[in-house]
Amino acid sequence: MKKIINDPADVVAEALAGFGAAHADLVRVQQDPALIVRVDAPVAGKVAVISGGGSGHEPLHGGYVGAGMLDAAVPGPVFTSPTADQVLAATKAVAADAGVLYLVKNYTGDVLNFETAAELAAADGIEVSTVVIDDDVAVTDSTYTAGRRGVGGTVLLEKIVGAAAARGDNLEAVTALAQRVVSQVRSMGVALSPSTVPHSGEPSFTLGDNEIELGIGIHGEPGRKRVPLMPADQIVETLLTAVVEDLPFTASDQTLLFVNGMGGTPELELYLAYNSARRWLAGKNIEVARSLVGSYITSLEMQGMSITLLRLDDEMTQLWDAPVHTAALRWGV
Amino acid sequence: MKKIINDPADVVAEALAGFGAAHADLVRVQQDPALIVRVDAPVAGKVAVISGGGSGHEPLHGGYVGAGMLDAAVPGPVFTSPTADQVLAATKAVAADAGVLYLVKNYTGDVLNFETAAELAAADGIEVSTVVIDDDVAVTDSTYTAGRRGVGGTVLLEKIVGAAAARGDNLEAVTALAQRVVSQVRSMGVALSPSTVPHSGEPSFTLGDNEIELGIGIHGEPGRKRVPLMPADQIVETLLTAVVEDLPFTASDQTLLFVNGMGGTPELELYLAYNSARRWLAGKNIEVARSLVGSYITSLEMQGMSITLLRLDDEMTQLWDAPVHTAALRWGV
Repeated sequence: MKKIINDPADVVAEALAGFGAAHADLVRVQQDPALIVRVDAPVAGKVAVISGGGSGHEPLHGGYVGAGMLDAAVPGPVFTSPTADQVLAATKAVAADAGVLYLVKNYTGDVLNFETAAELAAADGIEVSTVVIDDDVAVTDSTYTAGRRGVGGTVLLEKIVGAAAARGDNLEAVTALAQRVVSQVRSMGVALSPSTVPHSGEPSFTLGDNEIELGIGIHGEPGRKRVPLMPADQIVETLLTAVVEDLPFTASDQTLLFVNGMGGTPELELYLAYNSARRWLAGKNIEVARSLVGSYITSLEMQGMSITLLRLDDEMTQLWDAPVHTAALRWGV
Repeated sequence: MKKIINDPADVVAEALAGFGAAHADLVRVQQDPALIVRVDAPVAGKVAVISGGGSGHEPLHGGYVGAGMLDAAVPGPVFTSPTADQVLAATKAVAADAGVLYLVKNYTGDVLNFETAAELAAADGIEVSTVVIDDDVAVTDSTYTAGRRGVGGTVLLEKIVGAAAARGDNLEAVTALAQRVVSQVRSMGVALSPSTVPHSGEPSFTLGDNEIELGIGIHGEPGRKRVPLMPADQIVETLLTAVVEDLPFTASDQTLLFVNGMGGTPELELYLAYNSARRWLAGKNIEVARSLVGSYITSLEMQGMSITLLRLDDEMTQLWDAPVHTAALRWGV
């Protein structure tokens, strides 16, 4: 294992400290329990939006804390759920008077711990609503999941729902919007190489020299199947076919196309894949109205990518375009 | 070689097409010769700022085309200089009435081809000024270089000089500013793994399982020395010691600290290294007034990082903070 780290046990704490120092204008970072909180939280009159999960997927979720997106992110150890106490501490740190929305990727530990936190918060008089995202079409049930996994759609969900909370929508409205986004977004990924969790020191799986894994999870958990390396056009077609048939997306749909790097993929390859995806979608008369290309939900240094497609309506488009000021996404300010 | 590509010969053209489609609000992309041009160029009354070089370092330079930064980027093949004709075409596409500034990383092919283009442009009545950046303290002369190489400082140079051009400084003033930035910025990098040029299919060098290379170049060209893997704190100290002693930076200097990923390095490691760098600089009473952390000048999928330190003055700080609207850097708009 070659990584730029000190003691593997301190990776998350040291990276958090660095993140807090680099973005002191946006966030406050707390250790024990680890939290990333919007610098001006709690924001009176606004629904507080919280997400979290294991570390190793940066910039998710800490990179999305700030005006127009998340009020707090709750980072667990690498590829490990945060505790209920951590989530509760985040909740108390950012809850104002309009309630709290949890956006939770569908992994068993995350779902359980956010649920427990919601109960504890309710006992403290804080109203919490939870929406679980499960946009990965690759597999039903998996190593860490009952049901489908939450992956790339999470980034779009956090942006759109965060914008709705920022404009003053109430808890019921942002919850309904979050459910609508979840119902309209689908993803699938591919791995060319594994990632290595610092604590274990060993790659999470092995692939042959000419082998890729379709439908990979963001923790390296198994996907649909291993196949020989294919040209980009064929990889993109395989992923998009699964994504499009699942919802299904149909001709004249307005979409947001998100080509995401898994951490170790050069931007050159991501834009090449984006180009390929545009061509394929054009052939189906599916319109790409908005785009996001880059490494926004990763699996440490894994090489590979995921493709996410969101069917937009006018409100979602407007909320996507709304100002956002976070470490990883910023526009309009 | 595992990459998300089609024919290796088409990688740059396909990625450029994707980049142009994803950022049609910011840039126009042209093929044969390959160019990325600001969508509203030429901008009357403004010095046009152009940079370029081999591809494979994305988001450099195409990701920095837009308001407040570059007017055009000229991408060569992977790790290969653009031609003089390409640079000339970019020059004609963006030159208005205030002259053109070339910002050139110090690599032999780049310097030669930008120089030839400047002569051809002058013959066409376009006034061109050129500033070469050579911020890498690792080695004097190298595989691709007479003298030091241009690396991470290029990103800061393009931002600061682009802001000066945007506020209306004339060619003489932006040239002098660019020279001042070059005189105040120093960098050094480290590689944990090599990158593979698509066309060759073979890693550009090999490293042992427990070996890293200090002072690596952005094309994988040799650095200072190979050493066993060290803890992050020791890597950071090695890089920063070389950087700080070179200028030299001294106590109470105001600086911009830029921790840059080489393409395959997780953000977790970059923020951890940034944290380590902050601590080390604090010990020398060198103040970090501005920061940039992320993969902004890369070497395809290489794992590693570089650290760049720029001594700021008030004008540079103001220009760094000025609005910028590009694919890879955006704030204030």
